[in-house]
Amino acid sequence: MLSKMYSYADCGAQIMARADVLAQHTEVPGMLTRTYLTPAHHAAAAQLAEWMCAAGMHVRRDMAGNVIGRYEGANANAAALLTGSHFDTVRNGGKYDGNLGILLPLACIHQWHAEGKRFPFAIEVIAFAEEEGVRFKATLLGSRAAAGNFDMSVLDNQDEHGLSMREVMSACGFHPAGLAKAAYDAASVLAFVEVHIEQGPVLLNENLALGVVTAISGASRYMVEVEGLAGHAGTSPMSMRHDAAMAAAELGLYIEQRCQGVPSLVGTVGIFNVPNGAANVVPGKAVFSIDIRAEEDAVRLQAVADVLAEIDMIAARRQVLFQTRKTHEANSVPCAPRLQQQLAAAIRHCHLPVRHLPSGAGHDAMAMAAITEVAMLFVRCGNGGISHHPDEIMSTEDAALAAQAFACFVENFQK
Amino acid sequence: MLSKMYSYADCGAQIMARADVLAQHTEVPGMLTRTYLTPAHHAAAAQLAEWMCAAGMHVRRDMAGNVIGRYEGANANAAALLTGSHFDTVRNGGKYDGNLGILLPLACIHQWHAEGKRFPFAIEVIAFAEEEGVRFKATLLGSRAAAGNFDMSVLDNQDEHGLSMREVMSACGFHPAGLAKAAYDAASVLAFVEVHIEQGPVLLNENLALGVVTAISGASRYMVEVEGLAGHAGTSPMSMRHDAAMAAAELGLYIEQRCQGVPSLVGTVGIFNVPNGAANVVPGKAVFSIDIRAEEDAVRLQAVADVLAEIDMIAARRQVLFQTRKTHEANSVPCAPRLQQQLAAAIRHCHLPVRHLPSGAGHDAMAMAAITEVAMLFVRCGNGGISHHPDEIMSTEDAALAAQAFACFVENFQK
Repeated sequence: MLSKMYSYADCGAQIMARADVLAQHTEVPGMLTRTYLTPAHHAAAAQLAEWMCAAGMHVRRDMAGNVIGRYEGANANAAALLTGSHFDTVRNGGKYDGNLGILLPLACIHQWHAEGKRFPFAIEVIAFAEEEGVRFKATLLGSRAAAGNFDMSVLDNQDEHGLSMREVMSACGFHPAGLAKAAYDAASVLAFVEVHIEQGPVLLNENLALGVVTAISGASRYMVEVEGLAGHAGTSPMSMRHDAAMAAAELGLYIEQRCQGVPSLVGTVGIFNVPNGAANVVPGKAVFSIDIRAEEDAVRLQAVADVLAEIDMIAARRQVLFQTRKTHEANSVPCAPRLQQQLAAAIRHCHLPVRHLPSGAGHDAMAMAAITEVAMLFVRCGNGGISHHPDEIMSTEDAALAAQAFACFVENFQK
Repeated sequence: MLSKMYSYADCGAQIMARADVLAQHTEVPGMLTRTYLTPAHHAAAAQLAEWMCAAGMHVRRDMAGNVIGRYEGANANAAALLTGSHFDTVRNGGKYDGNLGILLPLACIHQWHAEGKRFPFAIEVIAFAEEEGVRFKATLLGSRAAAGNFDMSVLDNQDEHGLSMREVMSACGFHPAGLAKAAYDAASVLAFVEVHIEQGPVLLNENLALGVVTAISGASRYMVEVEGLAGHAGTSPMSMRHDAAMAAAELGLYIEQRCQGVPSLVGTVGIFNVPNGAANVVPGKAVFSIDIRAEEDAVRLQAVADVLAEIDMIAARRQVLFQTRKTHEANSVPCAPRLQQQLAAAIRHCHLPVRHLPSGAGHDAMAMAAITEVAMLFVRCGNGGISHHPDEIMSTEDAALAAQAFACFVENFQK
């Protein structure tokens, strides 16, 4: 444990102050937008490197642009406990999403460094350069590189100006040829633990500051086009209609009802549009998305199967045509039980109740699971749990509690 | 009756051929788009005037741009039976919508003129210059001028180039100062009868060529915005959501179910959109339209009241906010029973069964009802009843049957 009780309050204050400083590195004045390898992104990386140095760490950048600070253990070349999160953001995002998972361990290490405290293992804080997928429509670039499963085909993806990721990387001094070398050797890694704001309302609604993540939910995503029959709103009798929008609405409500009441299962129609819709025209076409997630893959896949079966039922009954295209599928990534137990013990040590919960959102830990056991500590998100939005907030008190729990976890860490 | 049986086939052929000719006057090559006072509109007006002259009519244009052909009765200055429809179109519209109601009486008069046949009353064919409301977002301009209830405030409406209707009219030689003089003196008018394609599938599905309109349905129209709470699709538990799109979907399905099975009642959600929707975001906002129509006003108004009550129920249960804005309301316009009977007799005279049906779409007859009794003859629309679309079709045989019935109606017309 950090030696003085007030030091956690210091950590909390430092985390919040630095989140404000980091948020000033944005592509768009007045709103936080920091995408991969833009000038704002470079400036944030430089700032993080400076803070890492100040915390007594050796800093390096890999060829994905990750900023990695190493706090040596008692013995040189010890295997490392990895931690970190991403410092890119969505457009008009929040300042804690990702950044908290970098700033929090830095704050703890800063104090350990001041006290001269070393552990039987090294600690590496990885500020992942890219997770959100905004600029090049490919997510988890930083953590996939670190985990050794970077998909080289996305190097040809282009940003909105038509620049390929490959070109942009080279122009910034990061060459794709070095991506393979960014991968950690699994033998040098003890585990990966990520601190992240919950980005949801569960902890907030239960009046809890911290939570232990059980798994990162698997996800299935589809884009769907419904083709019905356009008609005049005044002259098409109800019984003769093949309304594409109402077919989509019916499926949306089915998804909502199907997912309701099943723990950790969520289903969302986030895109719903009648192209060129007009008030006096029965919709001949509708476009919508389906996103289904659950902690357990079997639960998700059964829900997906039921939704697809319902599509067939609605198509037959309404005589409309659904075209479904799967756009994403990822299995659930469980957090290691022994790491969950150690995080739970640390939270109890802070005299806080322990809440286990799945993460419905994807995180860098998903990619890191390819090389080591992973764990995640969730921190309460204020404002109804809103995230990916400028209204995203968390409290200084919660930052301090999370720092205390994280420090306790590290100080008692057992491989 | 026209003297030779084959003359109806001639009428049918002439109607179809002239519809093709008229459709060549379009603003956009390859698709029929002819809006108020554009060069294509002027060319169509000139063509119609030429055909009116060829049918032995005196032609005049009023200050709304209507093209009016008068076929004198046996005595000069006799009161007139009015007929006609509009020659403007929607964007990428069909060639029979409106135009049929001009070309059909012209074909009949052309033959009466050839035979030297005159009636105890005059016949005026009004080619209304504007009905669809495309260019200036105001409908029924031609018939409202003829009926003496033109809304002078719409003269300031602008087209997409920022030109006001007032400017455009003057530039074409039609001055708004003369609009009042465009109004018919009710004493000079016997009735208004409009021939129109059904623009729906009722006659087609019942294998009938012709129908007698009972009334033009009243309509209520609303734009609705739903405000819920945006959230992350993965981290917002189903039970904590306030999904704006699903609230809108639920109301849409309620409207569908509420209108189902009630004769002549139709309800449509033609616009449905989640602004800036994303697959991984629970919709915080949705925008949609409501259009409710019925032959009887009481039936429509009860449906509207029930829909508004359902909005309150859904808003309370889902804790979302609905903002409803009424954008249009028009009462039902009944067709005169004695004129319906005369149309029915004419149809029976053609050895066809008589089908009475309401018109869910608005027509020029709505406006003309302000000065005289109105009636409408519907002609079967092919292709599933599609209209306002290039796939709108009708058959030459049906055109001939409609001409026969219309001629019979006129020849036996009783004030």
